[in-house]
Amino acid sequence: MSDPVDEELLWLRMSIANMDAALVHLLAERFKCTEQVGRLKAHAGMPPADPAREAVQIERLRALSETSGLDPHFAEKFLNVIIAEVIRNHRQFLDE
Amino acid sequence: MSDPVDEELLWLRMSIANMDAALVHLLAERFKCTEQVGRLKAHAGMPPADPAREAVQIERLRALSETSGLDPHFAEKFLNVIIAEVIRNHRQFLDE
Repeated sequence: MSDPVDEELLWLRMSIANMDAALVHLLAERFKCTEQVGRLKAHAGMPPADPAREAVQIERLRALSETSGLDPHFAEKFLNVIIAEVIRNHRQFLDE
Repeated sequence: MSDPVDEELLWLRMSIANMDAALVHLLAERFKCTEQVGRLKAHAGMPPADPAREAVQIERLRALSETSGLDPHFAEKFLNVIIAEVIRNHRQFLDE
């Protein structure tokens, strides 16, 4: 009943589940910040997207990925998914 | 020079940058775990994808999202991006 592979898989999956919970909570907090950015931008009449700033963010994350051991291509893909969601939310503020 | 909107934007963006760094490091750690899962699975001849487990993970994250205030649709999209990358990595282990 206690296959060592099953045991190690269970152990690793508990860590993965803990990290997923941490990721969800961090993302929730990040979207709280970008929501406030969206409100400020809509109020000040600034455009929802800011390609120059996004390029800087992506470059910064690629550098951080390299030191942390995360695949930089994945980091870029991941940030693009977040940025697309943030811009969608900012547009909603403009529409409201 | 010290426009209050610019100041608040700068403040929020410092928080966003800090959270992005935390996200990158958490993701790097998560991929370290899934790499080990991939190695174990390849060794034991288990398939790279596990749709039943993925469905449970997505359901769990959706529930966590609701309590943390993250859009559950975004949490699902985000986990799907990670899972696609994990399965791609697991396949590489099988090929090696």
